[in-house]
Amino acid sequence: MIPRYSRPEMVANWSPEARFAIWFEIEAHATTKLADLGVVPKDAAQRIWEVMLARKAEHGDYHFDVDRIDEIERTTKHDVIAFLTHLSEIVGPEARFVHQGMTSSDILDTTLSVQMAHAADLLLADIDALLDALKRRALEHKHTITIGRSHGIHAEPTTFGVKLAEAYAEFFRNRARLVAARAEIATCAISGAIGTFANINPSVEEYVAEQLGLAVEPVSTQVIPRDRHAMFFATLGVIASSIERVAVEIRHLQRTEVLEAEEYFSPGQKGSSAMPHKRNPVLTENLTGLARLVRGMVTPALENVALWHERDISHSSVERMIGPDATITLDFALARLTGVIDKLLVYPQNMRRNLDLLGGLHNSQRMLLALTQAGYSREDSYAAVQRNAMKVWQMEGDRTGQFAENLKNDPEVTLSNEQIDAMFDDAYHLKHVDTIFTRVFGPAQ
Amino acid sequence: MIPRYSRPEMVANWSPEARFAIWFEIEAHATTKLADLGVVPKDAAQRIWEVMLARKAEHGDYHFDVDRIDEIERTTKHDVIAFLTHLSEIVGPEARFVHQGMTSSDILDTTLSVQMAHAADLLLADIDALLDALKRRALEHKHTITIGRSHGIHAEPTTFGVKLAEAYAEFFRNRARLVAARAEIATCAISGAIGTFANINPSVEEYVAEQLGLAVEPVSTQVIPRDRHAMFFATLGVIASSIERVAVEIRHLQRTEVLEAEEYFSPGQKGSSAMPHKRNPVLTENLTGLARLVRGMVTPALENVALWHERDISHSSVERMIGPDATITLDFALARLTGVIDKLLVYPQNMRRNLDLLGGLHNSQRMLLALTQAGYSREDSYAAVQRNAMKVWQMEGDRTGQFAENLKNDPEVTLSNEQIDAMFDDAYHLKHVDTIFTRVFGPAQ
Amino acid sequence: MIPRYSRPEMVANWSPEARFAIWFEIEAHATTKLADLGVVPKDAAQRIWEVMLARKAEHGDYHFDVDRIDEIERTTKHDVIAFLTHLSEIVGPEARFVHQGMTSSDILDTTLSVQMAHAADLLLADIDALLDALKRRALEHKHTITIGRSHGIHAEPTTFGVKLAEAYAEFFRNRARLVAARAEIATCAISGAIGTFANINPSVEEYVAEQLGLAVEPVSTQVIPRDRHAMFFATLGVIASSIERVAVEIRHLQRTEVLEAEEYFSPGQKGSSAMPHKRNPVLTENLTGLARLVRGMVTPALENVALWHERDISHSSVERMIGPDATITLDFALARLTGVIDKLLVYPQNMRRNLDLLGGLHNSQRMLLALTQAGYSREDSYAAVQRNAMKVWQMEGDRTGQFAENLKNDPEVTLSNEQIDAMFDDAYHLKHVDTIFTRVFGPAQ
Amino acid sequence: MIPRYSRPEMVANWSPEARFAIWFEIEAHATTKLADLGVVPKDAAQRIWEVMLARKAEHGDYHFDVDRIDEIERTTKHDVIAFLTHLSEIVGPEARFVHQGMTSSDILDTTLSVQMAHAADLLLADIDALLDALKRRALEHKHTITIGRSHGIHAEPTTFGVKLAEAYAEFFRNRARLVAARAEIATCAISGAIGTFANINPSVEEYVAEQLGLAVEPVSTQVIPRDRHAMFFATLGVIASSIERVAVEIRHLQRTEVLEAEEYFSPGQKGSSAMPHKRNPVLTENLTGLARLVRGMVTPALENVALWHERDISHSSVERMIGPDATITLDFALARLTGVIDKLLVYPQNMRRNLDLLGGLHNSQRMLLALTQAGYSREDSYAAVQRNAMKVWQMEGDRTGQFAENLKNDPEVTLSNEQIDAMFDDAYHLKHVDTIFTRVFGPAQ
Repeated sequence: MIPRYSRPEMVANWSPEARFAIWFEIEAHATTKLADLGVVPKDAAQRIWEVMLARKAEHGDYHFDVDRIDEIERTTKHDVIAFLTHLSEIVGPEARFVHQGMTSSDILDTTLSVQMAHAADLLLADIDALLDALKRRALEHKHTITIGRSHGIHAEPTTFGVKLAEAYAEFFRNRARLVAARAEIATCAISGAIGTFANINPSVEEYVAEQLGLAVEPVSTQVIPRDRHAMFFATLGVIASSIERVAVEIRHLQRTEVLEAEEYFSPGQKGSSAMPHKRNPVLTENLTGLARLVRGMVTPALENVALWHERDISHSSVERMIGPDATITLDFALARLTGVIDKLLVYPQNMRRNLDLLGGLHNSQRMLLALTQAGYSREDSYAAVQRNAMKVWQMEGDRTGQFAENLKNDPEVTLSNEQIDAMFDDAYHLKHVDTIFTRVFGPAQ
Repeated sequence: MIPRYSRPEMVANWSPEARFAIWFEIEAHATTKLADLGVVPKDAAQRIWEVMLARKAEHGDYHFDVDRIDEIERTTKHDVIAFLTHLSEIVGPEARFVHQGMTSSDILDTTLSVQMAHAADLLLADIDALLDALKRRALEHKHTITIGRSHGIHAEPTTFGVKLAEAYAEFFRNRARLVAARAEIATCAISGAIGTFANINPSVEEYVAEQLGLAVEPVSTQVIPRDRHAMFFATLGVIASSIERVAVEIRHLQRTEVLEAEEYFSPGQKGSSAMPHKRNPVLTENLTGLARLVRGMVTPALENVALWHERDISHSSVERMIGPDATITLDFALARLTGVIDKLLVYPQNMRRNLDLLGGLHNSQRMLLALTQAGYSREDSYAAVQRNAMKVWQMEGDRTGQFAENLKNDPEVTLSNEQIDAMFDDAYHLKHVDTIFTRVFGPAQ
Repeated sequence: MIPRYSRPEMVANWSPEARFAIWFEIEAHATTKLADLGVVPKDAAQRIWEVMLARKAEHGDYHFDVDRIDEIERTTKHDVIAFLTHLSEIVGPEARFVHQGMTSSDILDTTLSVQMAHAADLLLADIDALLDALKRRALEHKHTITIGRSHGIHAEPTTFGVKLAEAYAEFFRNRARLVAARAEIATCAISGAIGTFANINPSVEEYVAEQLGLAVEPVSTQVIPRDRHAMFFATLGVIASSIERVAVEIRHLQRTEVLEAEEYFSPGQKGSSAMPHKRNPVLTENLTGLARLVRGMVTPALENVALWHERDISHSSVERMIGPDATITLDFALARLTGVIDKLLVYPQNMRRNLDLLGGLHNSQRMLLALTQAGYSREDSYAAVQRNAMKVWQMEGDRTGQFAENLKNDPEVTLSNEQIDAMFDDAYHLKHVDTIFTRVFGPAQ
Repeated sequence: MIPRYSRPEMVANWSPEARFAIWFEIEAHATTKLADLGVVPKDAAQRIWEVMLARKAEHGDYHFDVDRIDEIERTTKHDVIAFLTHLSEIVGPEARFVHQGMTSSDILDTTLSVQMAHAADLLLADIDALLDALKRRALEHKHTITIGRSHGIHAEPTTFGVKLAEAYAEFFRNRARLVAARAEIATCAISGAIGTFANINPSVEEYVAEQLGLAVEPVSTQVIPRDRHAMFFATLGVIASSIERVAVEIRHLQRTEVLEAEEYFSPGQKGSSAMPHKRNPVLTENLTGLARLVRGMVTPALENVALWHERDISHSSVERMIGPDATITLDFALARLTGVIDKLLVYPQNMRRNLDLLGGLHNSQRMLLALTQAGYSREDSYAAVQRNAMKVWQMEGDRTGQFAENLKNDPEVTLSNEQIDAMFDDAYHLKHVDTIFTRVFGPAQ
């Protein structure tokens, strides 16, 4: 976790305070249920909640003393025991009824589920904000014509709004994927040392799951199976790759020779300490790097699946790092991308200038079809169009109107000048933009 | 693709013949719709279908001449044009109406969707077969007691059926993931050079999609967006990791010192040419390697997402390799795992022998709880149980009953011999096996 | 392995014929040494070589019948035994002395070493050819001025030769890395079932190693340790990433708006079947994809290191795929890149045009330093330069000379017109090109 | 970076204090050289060193005020400028001569080189300590006989010392790889905004490189080329995989049924809070996870190579995370592994017990060779040995001596009892242990 690539709410999700709060709630809910089952005294269960909820009312949170827990852990060498000791310091003797028949992993794994589910909620909100920004800018530029490029080479016109609509559709898919990934990891396991419920009734698991808004893990083995977590991190890797896609698009559009769009550059900002003329797409370059980082965490998560027998602890160090790092980095990246989209400087006049750069060549396919329809063989049509296109390609200086001009002057092209000119109508390319927008944003936008 | 790790049906899915058949159907359906729209003559569209369906009726498939197409491609240097030329050799002049207003990528990308969707169908059938095998063996060994191990160290008893139930639940999840992944990539794009439908009506895309059982891609950019494919391959990586998990479990169980289960070893089989006594878990070791291969294809698929602008072709070489390789390898691996599970030799007597190896130590938690309930502090209970357990751990020779014996002889342990003996009842650990099976397999099994 | 991304010599290296030839030579050399040690009859060892060398003299190779070996393997279910049986069909009864005291892995692993070492030799030759092409074009364009870009934004001038010199230096490093990687895997192990030489004298290993040009593996465990192979494949991943770097550079330079260089486009070539005007950088886009593929094979090779105990066979399926695939793909990619560099179309006039696009802003740093030296504070200098630069940045139309003009008109900039004009001398930026070239190519070029 | 998986010296290497100290030294050495060149006043250069060295003498370090630098950065929004401002607060007006003609990347990239080189030095010391531990324990157990296992199944005997010798040889290779990787990244670049030395003489770079113990980067492009860093991180990934290999070996040996070695378990340690009988290999399981983490950082480093043109800044966020994380994690892992090896509990009596588990089957190859030499065909020999071996394999209870017994009772095996008994001499397997040790540790150990 790098502070400069972190946002406070997601960092807080992985803080010791957040972890201990979840530990407490799991233990307390379990104790409530154990009291129902007659395993522990009802008034003890009640008292624990009362003390802690009063504390929360007073302080805004359960107010555990993290330093004190660390201090106890240095003696006990066991984090859960240290926590329980500290809890009894707060609650008093009733705390001894907490954790009856439970295993540390019951607490730790279910806590990870709560943290990951909450991380997913924050990421979903991030995606929603990004979708809002993408939609707003897409509608704004629905009809802003720009050249579409395949292979980095001018192809045919599209609109800047359509580009953003594609990004919207992609993040709309990512939203659905993340909802599914959240469901994958939002499970609760309180099943004991080997998952057999030897020392605890399955109804405790069911009760705690319900209280925490989790599903019951159907069969656990001391731990929740790690294919769930693998799927979660793999999904984050896909989302990171989509971020990279949009980032790369903007980096391309900001290149000096292109300059169709630009990251917002505030008054007083310095692009380079050495070269005062610079305005660099540093935010989207940064997003490209952050995407690599999140992607790099997918394979360790996949390698975590094949634990030995009912569990080994090799997954733990991996998750201690990638749990926070992947979600904090992705949260930061989504928010940064939203900011970039939101304030993106768009230059329609440069788009128009670039579109015209090749003197009308973006209509080469249309001309090819026209010749074919006029009775030329496909081969002859292609040769005629390519021949006249390449002349434009290779000329120096202003190419405005040159493609049409060349065609008109080509004795083997027998279309009339009017017929040729009719092929250079940009509206032809944009006639289905409405269709696309309706597909992406629905009929009412 | 390695022949020894391939199965014919999945290989066929990626053959030139299969590819050309899909190409034809996309072109022919599109031509039908174009005829409806009045763009091409209706009888031409009809004639193309008639010729080709007659051909299929006669030969069992469309019977394209792959060598001939290759020969034409050597001249035209374009695969789709070579195909269309060959089609006109078969169909005659009506073929010139095929491909009107379409782009090569319309064909190529939609074909990849059909192939990947079919690959997913084959993989789903593989998972179903695996689920069947896992369920059958799980029910067979529902009550076969065996030691559960955390960290590779004996923990508490479970049953071999519960182990298999966990694998079943995991592949049940994998099935759902694959269904979702199939939906991700089962889309159709016939939207032209830059996705704007400049030269083809969107209704053609809708018609072809319907005919092929695909969804319409809401917004494409010459190509279908690659976040879809990334999600598909990421899902295969998760499934491969689950395969590895089961494979590693079996490899462990077959270790000489453990030998609780064993890959089927046929009469006449040789485990090693040099050492005639060997019976090695070579199939599950192989599955471990195959899992690495499939996992290694996830990152290239993720890197494919950030294509430049409306498309660059860098994804193509990646998909030419990982499209077939990932699905063929996973298909083979799933089938191999099913065979292993199906014929797995299970040794309940060895499970029992191993369970007893530590002289009853697997009841240490239960004894700890009993002492706590008898009024000992948690610390004193732990010390007493650990002290007596470690003596068993370190002794040589037969440990049968030693843990109970030590406890009875420990003056600080004041439980009666009857109370101690009552702690060594294995049924205690298995009382919730029914609950777990109901959760995994439902009430009727 | 995809035929279209393969070259015959590297494919041949991984053919059954090549493999069997190496098998034979390992067996025959070992037999020679065993004869020296008195373990097998000297004339048998001699006879084996005589028969096979005569065969090689006649046919050009040892002329093993691969189909026949496959046929025998279907009975024996063991590849090495099938080979030995076929060898005895050729050589006669003397063949029974072959393989005495050896283990299959002795043959298989040493063969892999020979194949990988030979693959490395081919790749080294590929890199040498690439270095030649890079050097030739670098010297050709040593003084071809072009704008250097950081963040995709114009920075300061450099030369196209310097760009290629950087690529040369990078592949010069890659060459050294590959030499080291070759040494990693060029080892011989003939040490028996568990690496203890129980049934074969270590001098056999030493003799065979010497004959094959391999080093002796100091300690093997039935297999050669896989950290060696991991290092080999990791090195290929680095080289692939360098290929991607050069490929991305060319893709950028070929963008329509930039067009400073272009992949060779042959007369009659079609860039797009739909859009006849297109000239796309498809070769370098393809190289980008191939780089992803090779990179994706690094992690499986790393996962192969941690085999269980003295060996498990999980590495085998991985290496069957990535051994050929990584080397064949990289060989193809290096050769393709060499061809691209060799025939690259370079457009110095476009480089000049782009360089001038920002009206002299590439001298902003120089102007900043000049103002500082003239006594302005760094802050004031920066503000003055930025202020005048941004005016150029935002203007429409031809910017030639505008930066100097603005500075001259700025009342707060007190430099004389002559002083300002002196800052716009491009030779200033290129004065150390010789130094760089001497560092990269040595004093005599 | 996770505190619990970190060691202070490596953490310090990446601290702001360490970074600023390197920044200062680069700037100060450059100023010294610029003074030699007459660009800045000699007494200013001298004064800067005098002030700062006096400060270092007083405080033990240069004593930069990190909070103050952060405070300035909040205003200037530029880290290097903030540092230089703070430097001038300490040194006085002479500081204005610092950084003349330099670019931020000159400082930042060269600093990264110094930090990575120092990290490599720490890792090399870690490996040396590990090699010492491995050698000591290897010599201690040079003759401790143990069963070698292929596929997890008993094969033939080796010694525990030979196992450790293999690990020693592997880390000896890793040491050489890391020395090479250190040389890769230990370069200095002070070459200006685009690597052309436009505003600074190349001799400054040469001087600073020499002072810092770095090589000169032959050609840089504002940044040092990232293939160097990729090779560095790839090498760390290989080393991590070797750590995993040893870790997996120990985890296997500690399994309850095997228990041939065990991580040190201190008096008073608790293996599990729930199950007091447990002694788990948690350190080596942790190492397995840490290996996954370091491995996961290789691909992001490879993806960093293909920066755009003369540089983009996408690599920066990746390196901010993996620079510290990979080296800190690997440093911790190497030290942890050294501790594990150093204190490893080894149980030769359990090794002996396991070796005898299969009643002598580990001599099956030897018996096979003996029968062959006695004139049996290979097929008949194999059948006889396998037949008698499988009987042992499948029997219940104590198998001591059973393989020999069966052979003696087999009417088709005509060897005498003496001949058969002679095959069960373990020294036969260990006769070349000296050879192996001499190869690995040299003649004098």
